[in-house]
Amino acid sequence: MAKYKVSFVPHGKEVMAEAGSTLIRAAMDANVHINASCGGEGICGKCRVMIESGEISGGISEKLSREDIDKGYRLACLSNIGSDIVVRIPVESEIDKASLNRMDTPRKTARIRTVNLDELKDKGLFVPPVEKKYLELTPPTVQDNAPDVSRIARSLRNDHNEHRLEFDMSVIRKIPDVIRQADFKVTVNIARPVREEGKNRIINIEPGDTTNRNYAIAVDIGTTTVWGQVIDLVTGEVLAQYGDFNAQISYGEDVITRIVFAEKPGGMEKINAKVVETINGVIEKIIAESKVNPDEISTITLAGNTTMTQLFLKVNPRYLRRSPYVPAAALYPPVPAADLGLNLPEHVPALVYPQVSSYVGGDIIAGVMGSGMAHEEALTLYMDIGTNAEIVIGNKDWLVCAAASAGPAFEGGGIKLGMRAAKGAIEDFSMDPISYEPMNITIGNVRPKGICGSGLITMVATLFEMGVIDNRGKFNRELDTSRIREVQGVWEYVLAWKDVSGIDRDVVLTEIDIDNLIRAKGAMYSGCITLLKEVGLGIKDLDRIIMSGGFGNHVDLEKCMVIGLLPEIDPDKVVFIGNGSLLGARMSSLTNRIRSDVGRTLSQMTNFELSETPSYMENYIAALFLPHTDINLFPKLKSRMDARQKKTSGTA
Amino acid sequence: MAKYKVSFVPHGKEVMAEAGSTLIRAAMDANVHINASCGGEGICGKCRVMIESGEISGGISEKLSREDIDKGYRLACLSNIGSDIVVRIPVESEIDKASLNRMDTPRKTARIRTVNLDELKDKGLFVPPVEKKYLELTPPTVQDNAPDVSRIARSLRNDHNEHRLEFDMSVIRKIPDVIRQADFKVTVNIARPVREEGKNRIINIEPGDTTNRNYAIAVDIGTTTVWGQVIDLVTGEVLAQYGDFNAQISYGEDVITRIVFAEKPGGMEKINAKVVETINGVIEKIIAESKVNPDEISTITLAGNTTMTQLFLKVNPRYLRRSPYVPAAALYPPVPAADLGLNLPEHVPALVYPQVSSYVGGDIIAGVMGSGMAHEEALTLYMDIGTNAEIVIGNKDWLVCAAASAGPAFEGGGIKLGMRAAKGAIEDFSMDPISYEPMNITIGNVRPKGICGSGLITMVATLFEMGVIDNRGKFNRELDTSRIREVQGVWEYVLAWKDVSGIDRDVVLTEIDIDNLIRAKGAMYSGCITLLKEVGLGIKDLDRIIMSGGFGNHVDLEKCMVIGLLPEIDPDKVVFIGNGSLLGARMSSLTNRIRSDVGRTLSQMTNFELSETPSYMENYIAALFLPHTDINLFPKLKSRMDARQKKTSGTA
Repeated sequence: MAKYKVSFVPHGKEVMAEAGSTLIRAAMDANVHINASCGGEGICGKCRVMIESGEISGGISEKLSREDIDKGYRLACLSNIGSDIVVRIPVESEIDKASLNRMDTPRKTARIRTVNLDELKDKGLFVPPVEKKYLELTPPTVQDNAPDVSRIARSLRNDHNEHRLEFDMSVIRKIPDVIRQADFKVTVNIARPVREEGKNRIINIEPGDTTNRNYAIAVDIGTTTVWGQVIDLVTGEVLAQYGDFNAQISYGEDVITRIVFAEKPGGMEKINAKVVETINGVIEKIIAESKVNPDEISTITLAGNTTMTQLFLKVNPRYLRRSPYVPAAALYPPVPAADLGLNLPEHVPALVYPQVSSYVGGDIIAGVMGSGMAHEEALTLYMDIGTNAEIVIGNKDWLVCAAASAGPAFEGGGIKLGMRAAKGAIEDFSMDPISYEPMNITIGNVRPKGICGSGLITMVATLFEMGVIDNRGKFNRELDTSRIREVQGVWEYVLAWKDVSGIDRDVVLTEIDIDNLIRAKGAMYSGCITLLKEVGLGIKDLDRIIMSGGFGNHVDLEKCMVIGLLPEIDPDKVVFIGNGSLLGARMSSLTNRIRSDVGRTLSQMTNFELSETPSYMENYIAALFLPHTDINLFPKLKSRMDARQKKTSGTA
Repeated sequence: MAKYKVSFVPHGKEVMAEAGSTLIRAAMDANVHINASCGGEGICGKCRVMIESGEISGGISEKLSREDIDKGYRLACLSNIGSDIVVRIPVESEIDKASLNRMDTPRKTARIRTVNLDELKDKGLFVPPVEKKYLELTPPTVQDNAPDVSRIARSLRNDHNEHRLEFDMSVIRKIPDVIRQADFKVTVNIARPVREEGKNRIINIEPGDTTNRNYAIAVDIGTTTVWGQVIDLVTGEVLAQYGDFNAQISYGEDVITRIVFAEKPGGMEKINAKVVETINGVIEKIIAESKVNPDEISTITLAGNTTMTQLFLKVNPRYLRRSPYVPAAALYPPVPAADLGLNLPEHVPALVYPQVSSYVGGDIIAGVMGSGMAHEEALTLYMDIGTNAEIVIGNKDWLVCAAASAGPAFEGGGIKLGMRAAKGAIEDFSMDPISYEPMNITIGNVRPKGICGSGLITMVATLFEMGVIDNRGKFNRELDTSRIREVQGVWEYVLAWKDVSGIDRDVVLTEIDIDNLIRAKGAMYSGCITLLKEVGLGIKDLDRIIMSGGFGNHVDLEKCMVIGLLPEIDPDKVVFIGNGSLLGARMSSLTNRIRSDVGRTLSQMTNFELSETPSYMENYIAALFLPHTDINLFPKLKSRMDARQKKTSGTA
């Protein structure tokens, strides 16, 4: 994708932006504030900018007069960049001018790290769990009337150097007819063993040469959301992706209430059916979107936390929530997907990620395997920020893990207008420090409907740094703006008024929301600190932090440090991988090495029960501030705040 | 079982007989003829004998007067031996006296060779495919809250030296509840791999110690009859056995008509359901009889010919009956028995014997493996005499096999009153050479209902040797007895008149029956001769003949040579193993070595298509006589017949 230079005047800031992207996103990336509350539909008309040079398309709206348009004014949210460009942000008042140089909080957007397919291929690791081989068989004669299966095995041995072969009953049933209908030219699907000395299982046969059509499905079974991807096993590309709420939510928001439900008579059947229904819905959607033939799907890999995994596999979760918190199994065998109720052809094996403990499940193992940390030297802190906060520390030689009950704030849970990272969610935000007017960037550039995790982090960090909320998350009641108000005893900030929102009311961020976020980040942070201390390490020892979570694609790492979710560390050491569970499921579809290595990784992993670690609660209480009770733990933030304090005092 | 000496006077013959067995059977074994046509129910009253010394029980009937009883007369068929005994056979006429020394055809009853369990145990081969281990687990604590499955695996590794473990999904679902309900004292079923380096699969878990209750089922899926056994995997004993007609018979008597039926729309579903229904009926019967708990059945092994196997597994048999006659597969993977429609618990794996070709199937491989010939030096001819005639020649180093279409005469098919070896079947026979009166021994000592394979062989051989039929199987029309007669143009011998038979008419043996037997034995014999010639061997090279077949428990080997079913060979070299397919299925339940060795055996086995071997038809035509066109091939029989001819001429 071509990139263009976008220069903002009078700010004197520059940023590279992708061709076709909007000016408003370029402004956000350049740390240039433009009032914009409607999310990019041109409704509020506030994001007027003047194009001084270069090409843009769009940007014209009834909010602009003929005269303005002729002068070169456009709406930034509707303007798509078509060349290098110079944009003037109108400075219409002294207040605006004063704020020109005030947005000095650094931005460090962590885009999701993508899978390096070329590297996999170079290392010879691009070996999916199911591969296809095309065979041209010698037809049988009276002199050579070996069984059909033996004929196929002979061709695989002689022509493809394939050995230790085993044929599934279902494929044996297909073979006699398929090979004759296809004139003895067929393609077979070979399911690879976990270990090299295991059997190569022939699980399907198709007429003709279909080796260029081989697909996998990867699924993350989240407590809140189920995500699925269709993966092309020839190119390694993701062809389609979709997420939907886990329908089990109707039986309870969190894992505990779902376990309680499953323990009731008939409860397991019902709650299992719900998640199977959700997964089937996701599968149907992504198959339709990717336009693949369902019969050409070769495998499905699923990852979920321990409770989600046991409920999906119909394994009684009763003992997960009772001390001493014991999961049924670490590893699960491959099972025909159809046997688990999934609407997939009978040949498709379902591979399910293993578990470490009741609270460190397959989703975390998937992230650890998918991110590569279990194969690398670098001492890594892996943080999965979902309904729970799971933490893994270590490298290729050792691993420790723990889970903390963080609550679902990062996924929109417990947030008044929280939502998952879907169309209409405010995913990025800035605020004018004088007028307190917002710049809302929404997923899909549509009217804002709510707030996803990344937006929430950036909002709270921005409000805090600009002194709109204090270190306990309470609004400054003195500020002169209608956007900050008290409704039924609860203080809140209005992100988008009803007339520009995507819902039938104002989109707001409340003090209760902020409080929930503080608790969530406090649990996460104290979990990290406690676990590091348990293994005798500190933040300075870390070579890398891997953040995983489904809370949006544009997480601002600096903002994460402002609220104290992340410890203060060189942002270049932080990698954001998005949904780590889904990444792991996808990686497991691309390289069978993950399955052969996961046993070793599990055996290297030591689980800590934070509830049994006395210092955890102390660390948690200390972390229930922005960024922390001890501001000295965040020296960069402290110095910025001190500088700003001085400046404010100076101008006062 | 105690044995007693039974002496017959005035014949001067002695035999050892089991305590409690009948005098009539002892007489048959001693080659002493007693007229007895009612099968042992004391109806005909002809088998009067006098007990000179020793103890018998029973033997008294209304057919005997008070006076006779006081003199010591008893009915032989009702008399059970209780000590060493001397029995006088009344010689009431000169005719009787003349016949005293005429029954000089040697008898050599081949009793079924039994499995030597002690030898298996001594060699360390008594390793069933599923074994049980009792575990006393350490209950989990917060310090040791490893998953339940990991806990079981740990105990298996540490306490039982079990490794390479894999847990089935169905057992994982049971584990959490079972171990807690059983206070962490449980028994697990371990399914052994085919090869040593394979996985040991945990397929079931039971509360408490159930290691002394572990059972298997062995099934022979015959075209005509399905046999089943319950086997105690602790002692190795057969606890129950039952056979029933294969209900597929309603869709055709032979494999070809069944394949034709299966090719019709919906035919496969119907014909598969029939055999599954039959097997389930047999299983139900033997489970009830053995009084085992179905949940404690650990495995089922099935063997059948190639068509029966493919119909049972729902694999299209279409190509079995069309040149070049190709089976779908040699080896089949283990499949859950429940997935094949069998009424067995979900943990039970079904192991199915592999096939060599369209006409040398799993029943033959089972016999070859079960009889031990594939592990021994001795050059062996294996003959399976069922609906088809299958032949294997070789030893532990090489094997050749072939199939000939013999027809079902030995199983009672195509015989007017033919029946399988069940209650009421005449299984042994002798005839008075003067009066032509029969001595019928029936299975169960009840009135005769028909003729099973062993009875048929003995009858035809006896009739031939006594000159009642000629070498083309045609009755001597000149003999002065009402037992030989012509009915609607067909000559026949009356074995039992209606008033003493177990059916509402006379039990007869017709010329058509004899003709069918000659065709069947001719196919068998010529198959053997042709195959021997193909590998450059002759009968004299054979160290051993193994006969397999479901045609009765008392096959007279000498009689088999008289009719030319067996070549003339030292009878001590012949072993009769009964139902070889069932034996193989049973042996596979007792020693897992069979499964690991069967692949090698298959790869060593060369299949000959007799229809492609020109000499086969010549040999067949030559064998359509009793015993053969060339009597010189049967020198012992020839010399007996020459001697008898001389004697007859002398007395004439």
